[in-house]
Order: sequence, then structure tokens, then C-alpha cells
Amino acid sequence: MSAVLDDLHAALGADCVRAGADIPARAHADASGVAPTRPLALVLPRDVEGVSRALAICHAHGQPIVTQGGMTGLAGGAHPYETDVALSLERLTGIEEIDVEAGTLTARAGTPLQVLQEAAEEAGFMLGIDLGARGSCTIGGNVSTNAGGNNVLRYGMTRRNVLGLEAVLADGTVVSSLNKMLKNNSGYDWTQLMIGSEGTLGVVTRVVLALQPRPEGVRTALCAVSDTRAALRLLRVLERRFAGGLLVFEGMWRDFMEAATREVGLAPPFAEPHELLILVEAATGEGEAGTARFEEVLGAVLEDGLVVDAIVAQSESDRARLWAYRESPYEYQPKLPVFVSFDVSFPRGRIGEAVADMQRAARAHWPDALSVVFGHIADSNLHLIVGGPGIDKKAVEERVYGIVASYGGAVSAEHGIGRNKRAYLALSRSEPELALMRTIKRALDPADILNRGRVL
Amino acid sequence: MSAVLDDLHAALGADCVRAGADIPARAHADASGVAPTRPLALVLPRDVEGVSRALAICHAHGQPIVTQGGMTGLAGGAHPYETDVALSLERLTGIEEIDVEAGTLTARAGTPLQVLQEAAEEAGFMLGIDLGARGSCTIGGNVSTNAGGNNVLRYGMTRRNVLGLEAVLADGTVVSSLNKMLKNNSGYDWTQLMIGSEGTLGVVTRVVLALQPRPEGVRTALCAVSDTRAALRLLRVLERRFAGGLLVFEGMWRDFMEAATREVGLAPPFAEPHELLILVEAATGEGEAGTARFEEVLGAVLEDGLVVDAIVAQSESDRARLWAYRESPYEYQPKLPVFVSFDVSFPRGRIGEAVADMQRAARAHWPDALSVVFGHIADSNLHLIVGGPGIDKKAVEERVYGIVASYGGAVSAEHGIGRNKRAYLALSRSEPELALMRTIKRALDPADILNRGRVL
Repeated sequence: MSAVLDDLHAALGADCVRAGADIPARAHADASGVAPTRPLALVLPRDVEGVSRALAICHAHGQPIVTQGGMTGLAGGAHPYETDVALSLERLTGIEEIDVEAGTLTARAGTPLQVLQEAAEEAGFMLGIDLGARGSCTIGGNVSTNAGGNNVLRYGMTRRNVLGLEAVLADGTVVSSLNKMLKNNSGYDWTQLMIGSEGTLGVVTRVVLALQPRPEGVRTALCAVSDTRAALRLLRVLERRFAGGLLVFEGMWRDFMEAATREVGLAPPFAEPHELLILVEAATGEGEAGTARFEEVLGAVLEDGLVVDAIVAQSESDRARLWAYRESPYEYQPKLPVFVSFDVSFPRGRIGEAVADMQRAARAHWPDALSVVFGHIADSNLHLIVGGPGIDKKAVEERVYGIVASYGGAVSAEHGIGRNKRAYLALSRSEPELALMRTIKRALDPADILNRGRVL
Repeated sequence: MSAVLDDLHAALGADCVRAGADIPARAHADASGVAPTRPLALVLPRDVEGVSRALAICHAHGQPIVTQGGMTGLAGGAHPYETDVALSLERLTGIEEIDVEAGTLTARAGTPLQVLQEAAEEAGFMLGIDLGARGSCTIGGNVSTNAGGNNVLRYGMTRRNVLGLEAVLADGTVVSSLNKMLKNNSGYDWTQLMIGSEGTLGVVTRVVLALQPRPEGVRTALCAVSDTRAALRLLRVLERRFAGGLLVFEGMWRDFMEAATREVGLAPPFAEPHELLILVEAATGEGEAGTARFEEVLGAVLEDGLVVDAIVAQSESDRARLWAYRESPYEYQPKLPVFVSFDVSFPRGRIGEAVADMQRAARAHWPDALSVVFGHIADSNLHLIVGGPGIDKKAVEERVYGIVASYGGAVSAEHGIGRNKRAYLALSRSEPELALMRTIKRALDPADILNRGRVL
């Protein structure tokens, strides 16, 4: 190990390499709940050349590296093993360019998402990527994990927002495709391999993102429907009627709403509880014409009985009140003594059965636990939280992932596999797929230094 | 060779293997203009198992294979060398499922695009992929080339429309991820590698596509602007005002409009010629409210001078009349004695300079040739046609691709590299990128049997 450290020191300078007690606590743990661990060393390059030199050295020594961004990941992808050298991109920050005519933003990978969002807005655009950790997570991490979040229905996962990348390969080679063009079929799009591979195939150092026009006249409603089938019919109607304007379609089941009122003290939105509530947002244009358009569409789905009750937000405070239900888990989840939270997806047509299965499992096996289901129905992505005293996390995981597998679902919809879900990956992927992933990994990182022990 | 043929015969049956004069002419040439060539043999598997057996045999013998779909490609990707075994997917046709709730369509790779479009419409949706060759091209070919076309501004390239794939690897391994979920971050998304790699990394056999809601109230206008800069400002305004409703934004420069009137006899749309015309379509909703919304937005850009003149289509025949300009090259291009057509992209902000450069080059070097520029401005993708007697195709290509390189553009925006643009790929890609592509190719196809001599 000291040979690696010596080489890193010599190549990067003493101020870019930390070891032992000099490694700050923020490098010891991400947000995945794994016990903090001090890595062997922390490398803090100042530029892409520094990243390149660090990787070349680790490659030569067969020294595993874990890349760290905002440390907000929930799957343990950036959480160090004690045998890892941690590579932090915290010094590779800043927006390099906003090209208004191309509609692009170019930034260094360590830049926090929110910084990019604010710069995009200042330039009269918006970013298609948004998630709860916006203040801390970095765009490099978003790209590496193909982050999802709040805007996926309209703007897609992070993948869809990326036009170009610069990345450093395992041996230190810098590959750069800082493409600003929406269409480019000139050779393999290798950037697609980096997106979502959780840092196991390369280290993303620069990102070109497509900017989006800011939607005008965003309106909000809470709709009660009888069941998931009705919710999916409603989704089809709203997608057609609002055309590209439908922005949000978030499902909250009855157990979720009960927890929101019981645990956080929110007033129930309707006089009677409903099986399923849908939080809807759509951009229908400024002014009275936009309001009329939104209300006409909602009026039609109420009239034909597809929606059994609805509240339309008349003000920003109304809107905040409706969103408070959706955000209620952020209030009570951290207070649970033990909890397991899931980020799974199902083919949309099977969501109803899958939710019923999960609710049945919770009642049968964890009758005293809090258990809530909610999520991005339009994106086929559900979240499930099971929490309470004396929960056996592993037993809960095995049961829930078993349900996921039985419906042909995905064990991770948006958070990734990291360290924590490796054992379950084979439930969502066949052996030939896993073999292909290993072939790709071996080709790009033959010494297996990049995020070793993650994903595969 | 006869050993390969014997093995193919034995494994697939005599009716699935043709040789010599039994190979029909359609397997001799794609639409790229390369002289027809009879391949060594033609294999016509009936199912994915047949594809798998054929590839395993060719892999064992080191026998190159060229995969053929609708033979509409313009880059020579499916055009056979005489040393190739051609693998046609023409028997792998048919839609296997439309899942209305998941919003997905699953089809075998040899199914023509138009069959999928019609099935999607019958189910109350639309497909996000459309291109001129829709009647002949196959969805497998669309995926392999990441086809662009008419809908990219709103629905993206083919890549964005693909949720799942089944593919056969070079050694015959079948990998299947017939994913219907919009979010799935469970391991590497290997399907991204297949999309756009032009059949060099695997043979796509099944496709799951996302279905789109049909846009309501599509309206059309032809707008005259002073230059490309004004066009890009107009694009930003329309994208914001029409939100997700802007569907078409096609640029036609003055030389293009002159050819449309001179060669095809179309009446000029405006009393005076303009530097640049933009064909605009947007979905603004059914009925009078939709009409009012469209006209209000156009009225505003006319009033502030961004658009200097405009024609709004009042009927389907008006709409057809406006589209006739955009489609005029389909009339005169086939009659040109020699022509070169380009499919290039530039960062949007540089389109104006690049077009001027190309026009200057045409006047200086091919003064007697017909030369027109048009294209998908919003997508950063331009088409250029240079045609006439005595054109030296290679000289034209070298000059135009030189201009593309000087602006950091792409030698292929949507048609791909195939055989015909291999010599120019290095103008758009750096050596480390090309090396990475070769690494990927070697890992997935070590015997280099899949579309050998294409792309790389």
C-alpha cells in the first residue's frame, strides 16, 4: 500500500492525498446506512489530469478505488471498504459553459445538482433532473447512477438529459465526447455505458446536459381514484389531454395517507379515505386560458367517474399543502428505530397486484410495523417503507424482493445496486445478462479497480 | 466455406440457407448506392434459436456475417461483401404484445416500422419513431442504427423509445431484457450498447417500445425568419410557449426553396424570397381553444418581428401544400445524374456559419451543381445535397466533412457510419474514443464476425 501512496503523493502532490486520521469523516460513509469505514487513503485531484494520474497508478498497482461525489447514494456505491482508495471529485466543480443557442450546460462532475439547476434557471431554462438530495448530490453521481427523481415522467432519467461526457477509464485514459448535438450517430455512443454503471466502468469528470424550456402555468390537483387500474386509465387520459404538459403523477395508497395523518399530523384531504390518491401536476399555459384548460380536463374525468373526488390547488400554499402528503415520509422515516426502504419497479399493469401482495406480506409478517407504499406510478416505480422496532431487515428484503421477482420487476428502479443490492441483482437479471455485464467490466477494467465489489 | 454451409444446413434445415444463384437480389444491396454484391450465402432463420445457432456456427468458423433488415440503410451497413454470410431477419416478424397499461409494444425485429405504427394507432397510441422508409425499414434496423427521422424533436431518437431488447451475441448467446418499465437501474443497461452500434455488437431479435399518447390538435405554419440566429430564438420561444407540444421545426434555406420551385414547380409561398423558412407543427389541443392558442403564439412572434412573415395552414390541403416544400428533394434528387447527400450535425449555435461555409464551398467548387441545405434545426441535424453532372463524389465528401470537422460536428447525425463513412469517422471521434470502441468490439465479438468492416 505505501508504494501506491508514495506514487500518488509524487504524482498529485501532498495536498491532494490524505491518509489515516487526516481523512475527513465525510469520506467514511454515504447515505446507505452501512457503518462508516475509513478508506486507506483519500485522493482529491484538482483536475481531470489528476484523476487520470491517480487511476493510472492504482491500475498499475491493482489498487481498488471508490469514487465519491455528494455521498447521498442509498445503495452503498460510494461507501468505502477499508481496502479502498477513495477518489473524491469535490475539487472538480463549476459550470464551464451555458450555450443558450445549443441549449446545453457543461459542468465539472463534482458540481452539486442544485448549482446547475439555479444556473439553468438564471439562463431562462430549467434542468430536466431533480431529486430530493439536490443540494448535496453531484452531477457526476447523478450520471453514474442514472438518477431518477421527480421529473422522470416528463424529462426521463438522467440518461435522457446527458448529451456528452468526459470520463477517465481504469488505466487513466481520458475519453472525451463533449457533444452538444441532439443527434450524433457517429460510432458507438460509449457514454451510454458510463451512465448508470455506478462508477464501475470509468470516472465521469465532465458532463454536457440538455437544457429544457421552463414549463408555463404549472397547476396542481389531488385526485382520488378507486384503484390502480383506474389510476392507469387516468394516466392515459391525462397524458393525451395535457400532451407534453403532464409533469407529475404520484400515487399514495391508503396506508401511506394514514401514516401521513397519524405520524405527521396532516389533516386528511377528503372527508372519507380513498384507496388511492394521485398527485397531479401539469403545465397548461399562463393565465385564465391555462386555468380553464386544466379545470376542463379534470372536470371531464370527474364527470365520467374515473376520478371520484378531487382538490385543485388555488394557490401556492394549497400546492404546498398537497405536496406535504407526498413528502411526509421525510418527516417520520428518520425517526423509525429500524427501517427498510425499497425502490422497486413493476410493469405498470401489475402494480395493483404487486401492491396488494406487499401489503398482505406486511400485515402477515410485520403486523406491528409501519408499512407504506407510494411512488411514481407513471414511471412504474414504487417505494415501500417498512419500519418499526425489531424489524429483521434481511428477512424483509428477501420477502419483498421475492415479490418483485415474481412480477418480473426490478430490484432497483432508480437508486442503483451499489453494495447493498448485489445479492439481489440476479432476481432481476438472467445469467446471460450478468455474464455480458462481467464481460464488459473485464474489458474496461481488467484489474477490477473501479468500485470493486459494487454492482457485480 | 463449404464447412460453414454444411453446418448451417445441418443446424437450420435446407429451407433456411440459400447459396449462389438461389440468393434473391434483395440481399445483394441496401439503399446506400454501393454496387450490388452477392454474399456467400443467405441465412433465413425462423426464430431466435435459429439466429443463435447460425451465429454460433459462424463464430466457431470465424465466418463474417452481415445482418439484413429492410435494406433501406443509406450508409452501407447491411450491404454485403462477397465474403459475408447474409443473415436476414425477414422471417422474424410480427407484434407479440401490446400492453395498454404498461404503454408498451413488443415485436420481433424483422417487423416493418409501419406495421408497428398502425398497431399502435389502433390501440389508441402512437409510436415515437417515424421516418420516410417506414414501409420497408424494420424495427430491428431502426434500433441497430438508432434511427432519427421526423419525430426526434418531440420523441427523441430511436434510443429513447426502446425499453427492452432481446439480442443474440456473436457466439450465439441469447441475452434478453424485455423490460417494460420506464425505470430500471438494476445493473448495466447493456441494451444501450446494442442501440446504434449498427449490428456490430449483436443481432437484435426482439424489441419492447414505449408507446406515446397521440397529440391532439396538431397545427401547422410556415414562418419566414431573417437568419439562423432568429430561427434559434424562435425555437426557444416556441418550445417554451407550446411546452411539450412543439412537434416539428424544420429549416429550409433560400437555395432549397429555389430548387423546390424551379425543379418541382411548386408555387413560392411568399411574394418575396426569404433567407430561411421554418416549417412548424405544434399540438395545442382540439377545438377553437387550441386554434386560438396556436394563433396567439404565432401572432406574438410576428408582432415582435422575430418572424417576418407566416402562413398558417387552415386545412389538411394547406398542410400538405406546406409539407410539399420540405419533401421536394424526394422528387428531384433521384433524377440527378450524380449526387452526394449528407446527414451531418453541428452544435446549434454554429449552424448559421456552417451553412454559409457549405454554400460558399458549393458556389466556389461546384458552381454548376444543384446544392441545397435543409434539415432538423432543432435537432442540430442538417441535410445537404450536392448533385449534377460530373460531380466528383469523393472530392465533395472530403470538402464537406472537412467543414463538419472544423465546427466540431458529426459526420453522421442519424444514418450511421456503415461502410460508407468509415473513412471519415475519425473526423468526429478522437483516438481514445476509437480505441474504446475497438475494446468494446473485441470484448463482445472477438472473432470479428458481426458486420465486419462496418463502423470501425
